[in-house]
Amino acid sequence: MDLVDLFKTKKIGDKVVIEGWIRNNRNQKEFGFIDFYDGTTINTLQVVYTKELSNFDEVSHYLVGSSIRISGTLVESNGKQEYELKCENIELLGDCPADYPIQPKRHTMEFLRKEAYLRPRTKTFQAVFKIRSVAAFAIHEYFQSHNYVYVHTPLLTNTDCEGSDQMFKVTTFDLKNVPLNDQKEVDFTKDLFGKNTYITGSGQLHGEAFAMAFKKIYTFGPTFRTENSNTKTHANEFWMIEPEMAFMHLEDLMNVEEEMLKYVVNYVLKNASDEIDFLDKFVSNGLREKLEKLISSDFVRITHHDAIELLLSSGEKWEFAPDYEGDIAKEHERWLTDHFNSPVFIYNWPRDIKAWYMKVNPDGKTVAAVDLEVPGSGELMGGSERETDLSILDEQIKKHGVQKDQIEWYLNLRRFGGVYHSGFGMGFERLIMYLTGIENIRDAIPFPRTPGSCEY
Amino acid sequence: MDLVDLFKTKKIGDKVVIEGWIRNNRNQKEFGFIDFYDGTTINTLQVVYTKELSNFDEVSHYLVGSSIRISGTLVESNGKQEYELKCENIELLGDCPADYPIQPKRHTMEFLRKEAYLRPRTKTFQAVFKIRSVAAFAIHEYFQSHNYVYVHTPLLTNTDCEGSDQMFKVTTFDLKNVPLNDQKEVDFTKDLFGKNTYITGSGQLHGEAFAMAFKKIYTFGPTFRTENSNTKTHANEFWMIEPEMAFMHLEDLMNVEEEMLKYVVNYVLKNASDEIDFLDKFVSNGLREKLEKLISSDFVRITHHDAIELLLSSGEKWEFAPDYEGDIAKEHERWLTDHFNSPVFIYNWPRDIKAWYMKVNPDGKTVAAVDLEVPGSGELMGGSERETDLSILDEQIKKHGVQKDQIEWYLNLRRFGGVYHSGFGMGFERLIMYLTGIENIRDAIPFPRTPGSCEY
Repeated sequence: MDLVDLFKTKKIGDKVVIEGWIRNNRNQKEFGFIDFYDGTTINTLQVVYTKELSNFDEVSHYLVGSSIRISGTLVESNGKQEYELKCENIELLGDCPADYPIQPKRHTMEFLRKEAYLRPRTKTFQAVFKIRSVAAFAIHEYFQSHNYVYVHTPLLTNTDCEGSDQMFKVTTFDLKNVPLNDQKEVDFTKDLFGKNTYITGSGQLHGEAFAMAFKKIYTFGPTFRTENSNTKTHANEFWMIEPEMAFMHLEDLMNVEEEMLKYVVNYVLKNASDEIDFLDKFVSNGLREKLEKLISSDFVRITHHDAIELLLSSGEKWEFAPDYEGDIAKEHERWLTDHFNSPVFIYNWPRDIKAWYMKVNPDGKTVAAVDLEVPGSGELMGGSERETDLSILDEQIKKHGVQKDQIEWYLNLRRFGGVYHSGFGMGFERLIMYLTGIENIRDAIPFPRTPGSCEY
Repeated sequence: MDLVDLFKTKKIGDKVVIEGWIRNNRNQKEFGFIDFYDGTTINTLQVVYTKELSNFDEVSHYLVGSSIRISGTLVESNGKQEYELKCENIELLGDCPADYPIQPKRHTMEFLRKEAYLRPRTKTFQAVFKIRSVAAFAIHEYFQSHNYVYVHTPLLTNTDCEGSDQMFKVTTFDLKNVPLNDQKEVDFTKDLFGKNTYITGSGQLHGEAFAMAFKKIYTFGPTFRTENSNTKTHANEFWMIEPEMAFMHLEDLMNVEEEMLKYVVNYVLKNASDEIDFLDKFVSNGLREKLEKLISSDFVRITHHDAIELLLSSGEKWEFAPDYEGDIAKEHERWLTDHFNSPVFIYNWPRDIKAWYMKVNPDGKTVAAVDLEVPGSGELMGGSERETDLSILDEQIKKHGVQKDQIEWYLNLRRFGGVYHSGFGMGFERLIMYLTGIENIRDAIPFPRTPGSCEY
């Protein structure tokens, strides 16, 4: 039976059979203790074995990491837990050498990153990846219960949303012998799809097509960027959630973002409570309080213009000068969330620094875009109302150098019963970092892919 | 408000405001009817408008596909539905030209495939993609409620599971100027990851690493194969679910597959009931009965050997002769599911025709693999117990030409507390085809990618 179910349903006196692994094995002459886990809960069960076992000597030499099957009876414990398991029979399923990298001591995150295939066995990563799983489900549950349709937008694509210089090329060619045509250009007609193909950097454009059919949709899938950037917040492969809602303006978009985030945080606090407590204690002090505070707070909403004004009048010395026409630097984000002591929506951004598909406001200078900044983690979501005016879209496309022939179909969405609509993107790893207090994106995804690193 | 909520909560006499699209607009001199939909349900609401409207003439010329906002009162209907909407005000949000491809008539699936970005607006695809969304959630709910952890295995990888000749290459190189090193080989050290990289054909190996930490895990993500095959059941990009369970033998693997499938079918029948009824009526007669029958049936379990024996003694004339050492052809699958009138597990397959990681049975000739065949759709899932004996794995790796240096970490899973374990893969589009009665995989995925075709 699963250890998590044992903790939920069994009581002192019950006989059980369990299978799992040894986290620690301490023994004295007459008896010993095994910290037993099976991965279905972050908690371990203390197993007591004594000389009464015919294989006592063997058992006392079982090494950390070995897999075992135990039968025994739950008995009262002197320790912190309600009970421990008095072992009546124990069997080695798979042994583990003494040089096993995961030992019952503190390992650095850098060390564990190199052992990415083993690190989910540590308590820290059992917590992080359990929360990742629970949060993913919470996202699905939120959207499904609010009439959204989950759409699998394509990964392989010829359509340019974020700019193809940011996208990986995909091919079946032998890279040593790429075929050229008469014009000495790559002969993509010979490739599997007969054309130049990328892995997508966003499902938004395809998501909009589905929002024009289902009203409210969301995507949840892997996304790729070629950015050659080695920071704590960049990875070349990451998961993203991209909801898109027809008949929605910017104000309601912020409402959805706020409601969804609170739903997910609340769900994680309830369904991964032990994991949150573990991380609170050993990884990120104050984690539970931070998350509980978020649920009960009303997110601040401020225009980009007013945010810059506030930053300029703050009396702070900035590395990057706050600029009415410019982006908001990390130091500004931090100051704003500290100042308000709350998540902050910053909306109505300067048109020239934002994407081509965002709705231009009546002032002609700003777009109806919104970023959500959260305390401690910075930008968590970015969204906007989408431009529906074809003449403005034409202008934007030219300005941003988007290839129009690739997105004729996208423009048709405005021609065929087009409506005002909005959407946002949330990087899933950013959310996991916020939920766990983990500080490096490499520790928030099972097998991170970053420049120079594609291991396992 | 969402139309699906209107149907659930509103009654005759209620005033409502709704936004959506025109599926049809029929009018006479004094009054007219609009079939209104918003995509949150497959059902339409009949809207009645009369000369009382100041813009009656304009409204009577609104074209199919246009988006509108209507306010009005729900009144008794003479039609099939409980009520219709008496329109008091109607406003055009976005018009639609007369040559709009989606008209209120039967379109062929081939025609709609070419308009992949518009086809979700048809009733057939509203049903298919709603069921796709609901089924995806059911899968998550099944596994999450049974203590499984959802794992995002990497898409970009250097590890070979199904064979790298089946995998797409991924690069940031300019394909026209791929850099070569002194040995005139491709200089992958100059690529973003510094090595040869692919998009994955399976998350299984990485999934096994997580099963050795969490006991029970599942993946659900996109998968890629370069197969140059234009059939009704092959696509180059598809979604797959790959659960992996430590401490599990083949018998329990079949139990999980059977229980999970019944759970998903039951959930879809309950939560996409109108969509099933629509498809039953217009796309696949008998669909509901087929699905209801599955839930109440006990799946047959038969060895490959016994299945071949049965086929040979059937008296049928076969195009492909049933072979104790060979694969089971489509005609055989069909005959077996017809014969038993039930889903059929075929297990213990000849070793030489199955994958290298499958557990070799004590007979040395077969592996503990199992395929699930379902009536009308053929193979739906394929799984196996995994080999844990390192010397047998060594032998298999050599035989199948797997690059051992790439999977040393995978072999270590057997060295570090390895345990018996099993897993399976389910192609999500195969499931959707089964659940909807749709016969071509191109119609079960939003934007299909097949040889020569990567549109939108």
